[in-house]
Amino acid sequence: MIHPSAIVSPHATIGNNVTIGQFTTIYDNVVIADDVIVEGYCELGVSNALSEGENLIISSRSHIRSHSVLYENSFFGEGLVTGHRVTIREKTFAGKNFQVGTLSDIQGHCSIGDYVRFHSNVHIGQKSKIGNYVWIFPYVVITNDPHPPSNTLLGVKVNNFAVIATMSVILPGATIAKGVLVGAHSSLKGDTEEDMIYAGSPAINRGSTAKIKRQDGSNEQAYPWRKHFHRGYPSELVEEWIKNDS
Amino acid sequence: MIHPSAIVSPHATIGNNVTIGQFTTIYDNVVIADDVIVEGYCELGVSNALSEGENLIISSRSHIRSHSVLYENSFFGEGLVTGHRVTIREKTFAGKNFQVGTLSDIQGHCSIGDYVRFHSNVHIGQKSKIGNYVWIFPYVVITNDPHPPSNTLLGVKVNNFAVIATMSVILPGATIAKGVLVGAHSSLKGDTEEDMIYAGSPAINRGSTAKIKRQDGSNEQAYPWRKHFHRGYPSELVEEWIKNDS
Amino acid sequence: MIHPSAIVSPHATIGNNVTIGQFTTIYDNVVIADDVIVEGYCELGVSNALSEGENLIISSRSHIRSHSVLYENSFFGEGLVTGHRVTIREKTFAGKNFQVGTLSDIQGHCSIGDYVRFHSNVHIGQKSKIGNYVWIFPYVVITNDPHPPSNTLLGVKVNNFAVIATMSVILPGATIAKGVLVGAHSSLKGDTEEDMIYAGSPAINRGSTAKIKRQDGSNEQAYPWRKHFHRGYPSELVEEWIKNDS
Repeated sequence: MIHPSAIVSPHATIGNNVTIGQFTTIYDNVVIADDVIVEGYCELGVSNALSEGENLIISSRSHIRSHSVLYENSFFGEGLVTGHRVTIREKTFAGKNFQVGTLSDIQGHCSIGDYVRFHSNVHIGQKSKIGNYVWIFPYVVITNDPHPPSNTLLGVKVNNFAVIATMSVILPGATIAKGVLVGAHSSLKGDTEEDMIYAGSPAINRGSTAKIKRQDGSNEQAYPWRKHFHRGYPSELVEEWIKNDS
Repeated sequence: MIHPSAIVSPHATIGNNVTIGQFTTIYDNVVIADDVIVEGYCELGVSNALSEGENLIISSRSHIRSHSVLYENSFFGEGLVTGHRVTIREKTFAGKNFQVGTLSDIQGHCSIGDYVRFHSNVHIGQKSKIGNYVWIFPYVVITNDPHPPSNTLLGVKVNNFAVIATMSVILPGATIAKGVLVGAHSSLKGDTEEDMIYAGSPAINRGSTAKIKRQDGSNEQAYPWRKHFHRGYPSELVEEWIKNDS
Repeated sequence: MIHPSAIVSPHATIGNNVTIGQFTTIYDNVVIADDVIVEGYCELGVSNALSEGENLIISSRSHIRSHSVLYENSFFGEGLVTGHRVTIREKTFAGKNFQVGTLSDIQGHCSIGDYVRFHSNVHIGQKSKIGNYVWIFPYVVITNDPHPPSNTLLGVKVNNFAVIATMSVILPGATIAKGVLVGAHSSLKGDTEEDMIYAGSPAINRGSTAKIKRQDGSNEQAYPWRKHFHRGYPSELVEEWIKNDS
């Protein structure tokens, strides 16, 4: 299942039932578990001065789409799914079932929880700390330098169940509380309160997310989204959410 | 004219005078008409769970630039021109002379009219309906989910001759009327009136596009742009525009 | 040091100690000086109707990361460093030590001074003139068409030591004076004064950059950044800055 045009280092560790596509390169310090698909034109295990020769670990049941570039010295839990042309630098530590969309650019030196979803073209600066069940939509940038250029990096913290809508900028050192919704095209700074909407540039508190109604005819609350949106999450997890919320 | 390093499925249909570049992959369900250039490092006919094994059809006189990825189950009329690293997913139906710039990301399940131009890094969400002679400039995102994440997708409609300037977000369900200009860095929601300027975040009606003067020394009206900008359109079409406007 | 899968034109000029990675293509009109690394999956010397068969010149000690596409008829001074998937079109003339981040898209027909740094996903329109020691951060777009679509291109001028923060749009014909800071998520038009902050959409003058304090505990001025941030600049240059400022 390794395409004859692929270049796979003999020092890499490749599990069972792994597919490696055409023209893909797997460098030395790569460990791929079982049941993984790496599509064509990818580079896995790129090294640089900061990657220190440590392993890139891709856990089982992952799917890396074509033209993606992943550096060594990162860890991805089981069920990683990427879009095309994803770039993920060293020291990115992601939990299970991480989904990251086409063209996203993760600058490394960051942590990402379980079941996190990034849509297309998301940019994650170094020192970001992203919790579980977070959603980040296209063209969002998470920054870190409070007065660029400098050597002072203030990472952003995004807590569980938070949602950052399209083309928002999260400014250095901001904290996005549990269940917050950042509206599209916003610029958010500082601290936030749980389950509130922040929108605008600069983004301000626009009230509780509970006031947003679903536009599917039900007229029920759209947030917390975990009450109605379960696509792609295992049923045990959904049951746990329901139990904790009730 | 097929580069020896290219991988072309024997099930693909390749027309006359077709060039296929180095390291390009053409999968099974691809139909390429005559006089087409597919540059290097491309993948045409990628399949996924939603693409249903239907054909990717590239009509004649098309030019697909390097590193592009197009899924199966899409149709492009004659004269498609792409930039580099374009990603176009399944169920994209585009008319003739579609031009789509470098890094653009079309999520599929959308329709695009004739002579549409997307500049670099345009993101088109599913369920978008784009008319004829539309212009979309860099880093514009057309969204679809009114309360993300959800299963409720409200597509955006963009009517003929509309122009969306750089780095604007078009919110779910918005309708951009004929000849509207959306200013740069705007966020547009809801309905619009023909030939009006919408700008700001949220974008509001700033008056008629007729008040914008050309900055080429002529001091004539810049809009409707079809009265003075004809580069790349066939003269029959320009004559039709003039006839219909007079 | 040329990978056996690379395709290198016999008409290209390749210096000493040059590394060319797997699956990279070097076309005819390419001149690469000594001590250069071109990683895999790149295309150097792409031609089009505007590139006129002139050379792409890559000076010594440059490093071009994987999946980058550079057109012919451009010049880069020594020490060019690119991220991955960079696209640089014809007639781009850049000074020494230009650093350009992953996914950046330079439309050509522009000039870039010495020691300029673009972060990820920066878009530079044609006719831009960028001075020395300029910093441009992710998802910034520099535009040029005052009433798109048109044939009237008004380039943007960015003067020495200016900083443009994340996701800002610089409108056609704007001039960014020496030492200006454009805040994140801004939209800037027209002229500016030296060493001032411009922020908002539309961006307005928010006072002197001198009032921004460093967040590293020093409580000193963050700007001009050249007084404290010297990473990656040669010591002679830093000494010159200090001499000129005192």
